[in-house]
Amino acid sequence: MRKYLVEFVGTFFLVFTIGMTVLNPGSAGPLAPLAIGSVLMVMIYAGGHISGGHYNPAVTLGVFLRGKCPIIDVPFYWIAQCAGAVFAGVLVPLIKGAPDVKPLEILKWQALIAEALFTFALVWVVLNVATSKDTAGNSNYGLAIGFTVTAGAFAVGSVSGGAFNPAVAVGLGTLRIAPWNTLWIYLAGEAVGAVIAAALFRVTNPDDN
Amino acid sequence: MRKYLVEFVGTFFLVFTIGMTVLNPGSAGPLAPLAIGSVLMVMIYAGGHISGGHYNPAVTLGVFLRGKCPIIDVPFYWIAQCAGAVFAGVLVPLIKGAPDVKPLEILKWQALIAEALFTFALVWVVLNVATSKDTAGNSNYGLAIGFTVTAGAFAVGSVSGGAFNPAVAVGLGTLRIAPWNTLWIYLAGEAVGAVIAAALFRVTNPDDN
Amino acid sequence: MRKYLVEFVGTFFLVFTIGMTVLNPGSAGPLAPLAIGSVLMVMIYAGGHISGGHYNPAVTLGVFLRGKCPIIDVPFYWIAQCAGAVFAGVLVPLIKGAPDVKPLEILKWQALIAEALFTFALVWVVLNVATSKDTAGNSNYGLAIGFTVTAGAFAVGSVSGGAFNPAVAVGLGTLRIAPWNTLWIYLAGEAVGAVIAAALFRVTNPDDN
Amino acid sequence: MRKYLVEFVGTFFLVFTIGMTVLNPGSAGPLAPLAIGSVLMVMIYAGGHISGGHYNPAVTLGVFLRGKCPIIDVPFYWIAQCAGAVFAGVLVPLIKGAPDVKPLEILKWQALIAEALFTFALVWVVLNVATSKDTAGNSNYGLAIGFTVTAGAFAVGSVSGGAFNPAVAVGLGTLRIAPWNTLWIYLAGEAVGAVIAAALFRVTNPDDN
Repeated sequence: MRKYLVEFVGTFFLVFTIGMTVLNPGSAGPLAPLAIGSVLMVMIYAGGHISGGHYNPAVTLGVFLRGKCPIIDVPFYWIAQCAGAVFAGVLVPLIKGAPDVKPLEILKWQALIAEALFTFALVWVVLNVATSKDTAGNSNYGLAIGFTVTAGAFAVGSVSGGAFNPAVAVGLGTLRIAPWNTLWIYLAGEAVGAVIAAALFRVTNPDDN
Repeated sequence: MRKYLVEFVGTFFLVFTIGMTVLNPGSAGPLAPLAIGSVLMVMIYAGGHISGGHYNPAVTLGVFLRGKCPIIDVPFYWIAQCAGAVFAGVLVPLIKGAPDVKPLEILKWQALIAEALFTFALVWVVLNVATSKDTAGNSNYGLAIGFTVTAGAFAVGSVSGGAFNPAVAVGLGTLRIAPWNTLWIYLAGEAVGAVIAAALFRVTNPDDN
Repeated sequence: MRKYLVEFVGTFFLVFTIGMTVLNPGSAGPLAPLAIGSVLMVMIYAGGHISGGHYNPAVTLGVFLRGKCPIIDVPFYWIAQCAGAVFAGVLVPLIKGAPDVKPLEILKWQALIAEALFTFALVWVVLNVATSKDTAGNSNYGLAIGFTVTAGAFAVGSVSGGAFNPAVAVGLGTLRIAPWNTLWIYLAGEAVGAVIAAALFRVTNPDDN
Repeated sequence: MRKYLVEFVGTFFLVFTIGMTVLNPGSAGPLAPLAIGSVLMVMIYAGGHISGGHYNPAVTLGVFLRGKCPIIDVPFYWIAQCAGAVFAGVLVPLIKGAPDVKPLEILKWQALIAEALFTFALVWVVLNVATSKDTAGNSNYGLAIGFTVTAGAFAVGSVSGGAFNPAVAVGLGTLRIAPWNTLWIYLAGEAVGAVIAAALFRVTNPDDN
């Protein structure tokens, strides 16, 4: 139960920061990816020892496939993460006033590939820095994971919005930054990325179960 | 005594950097949150082993409620922190010349919620990275705490000024960045955030006293 | 084999992020060096325990000369790194559309010196933070290596493009950011930098073989 | 001898990056403090285990006063650091072409206080993160020290140029960014800051000799 609470809190702050910094007029301008990666980093450092600090259904999927998340936790993590995202998506317009939202124009195939690529990168980083026995005890896991999102948002933010996270995709929908009819692009791309990352982890870490 | 001195020094540099980078004309433009989070980070790494590196009455309150700050220290920490903030608030205009200050326009309820949210985040991060037995010995505590303020200042700086810290609120008043009659908004929001963070820490870390 | 796969993946993401953020219109504006250093950092934290996380033929050369990379691995690392770079160079225009590329104007000798200097810095940092017995077990190796590239790209990006990496130079050629007839400048400057860094490491770490 | 070589190299890259990013037209625009703090950070992570990674005569003075640098090393460290700075100051215009330099207008007393304050902060951070027995073995010393300069350059760069380092002051003179007749301001302010930081360290760490 306390794990789900931590996942709710972390995902809430991630999506709240995305909403405040991205929703027109964004409060961080071109520095939004730095703010977003930073808030993910700090929430991972805070909650990682309790819940693992996923804040992302695709990460939960990847950690499950790698064998480090019990199947019973998966649906509850997903629910907690999406609930945090929706709550943030509802709160942001109340804090900012009713902003004038211009939804992203998303090119289908490019966005799908962009989301798959950086969700792959994100889950690949998570599995190696937070679940590998070779890197156990490091102090850099939050920095590595948070700044994967920073780098990805700089690289492909203008292509897909840079979610790399189904809960964030739900948050972007709630905030009307991305149209709901593009949600499948996020879910499909992110699922593919997470599955491939988990497979690559197993192939490249044969002695680590 | 030496602990109070360290709290004075750290809070002074935090508010001095805020004043120099935010007071019109700000010396860091839109990068001010990066400068502010960085100076907090470095002061925590420098002074954490002596005083805990709070530099923030709300953090002191949270650490006290979590049971890791003796009650006798609390008022002296608060005095040292506020003294550092006022000293910085007096020094900044002498260094910059007498700048033309346009006080923030603060919307009451939005600012209260914004301060409560990110003070909660800040105290939540502090308690987990700097007082939890699970994370003892990590090298990331300063990075995590400093960049919580960076993320928060990017996210809600335009709503409330982004203090998350009663001593900073006093500094913003001294610098005339925030009108004194809004001080209660900061104190109330930050107290609520700190209390909830301490409560959540206790609920989610039942074995850590 | 799994090492080469990891080198392919890491170099791919490095060059993909460079292409997306630098190719006109760059998706990160003047923040591109931050995105590029960050992606290098996270890929090093992810793959370092498997392949060493070079993602750079000059680094592989330096690590080989320092005695920590078997000679048999060197050509395969180089092939994997260049293959990742070329793949990224082909993919970027498909994701961005066919951008209007204005190749860098590169002043020969200045670019050669700039590439030599920061490739030296990069290999010097790598050898000390990732292969020295004095610094074994640190959590900062990825941060140190990634932000060497960030600093170098800020410092001399406008002189040479800021590759410091023969695979990135191949990627810049594939992307038509740098004309192919300047490739020798990169290769020569970077080889010189790597060799001098390895020599300096040996001179300054006489007890570390 | 190898220690002096490392100090030469690190100070060279620090001043070279300052010159490239600050000298008109600066290659990093308002992000110069990030580039400068980053290059200092990476050089500290690279060379710290060999020479201590001072790259700054004021730091050498502070570490000497704190009792962790033999007196015999002090003049040679200073010579190596200044030589690196001058070499960088000569090289930068050759790489950039002969830039049109508009020297800083420096207000005497404000600049003196600004240099004293942040040199104090820098030496205070160094002594606590790199020489204290309480923080031995941490992985954050380079990040803490480098980003003290980043924060200080954002805060008071427009007041004094943000050197906090006599070797950098010599470099700014060589580059004609600061007029030579202001050198005493840097030397005086930085010496005062370093001495006070060493004194404060001794007062607040009575059991650490």
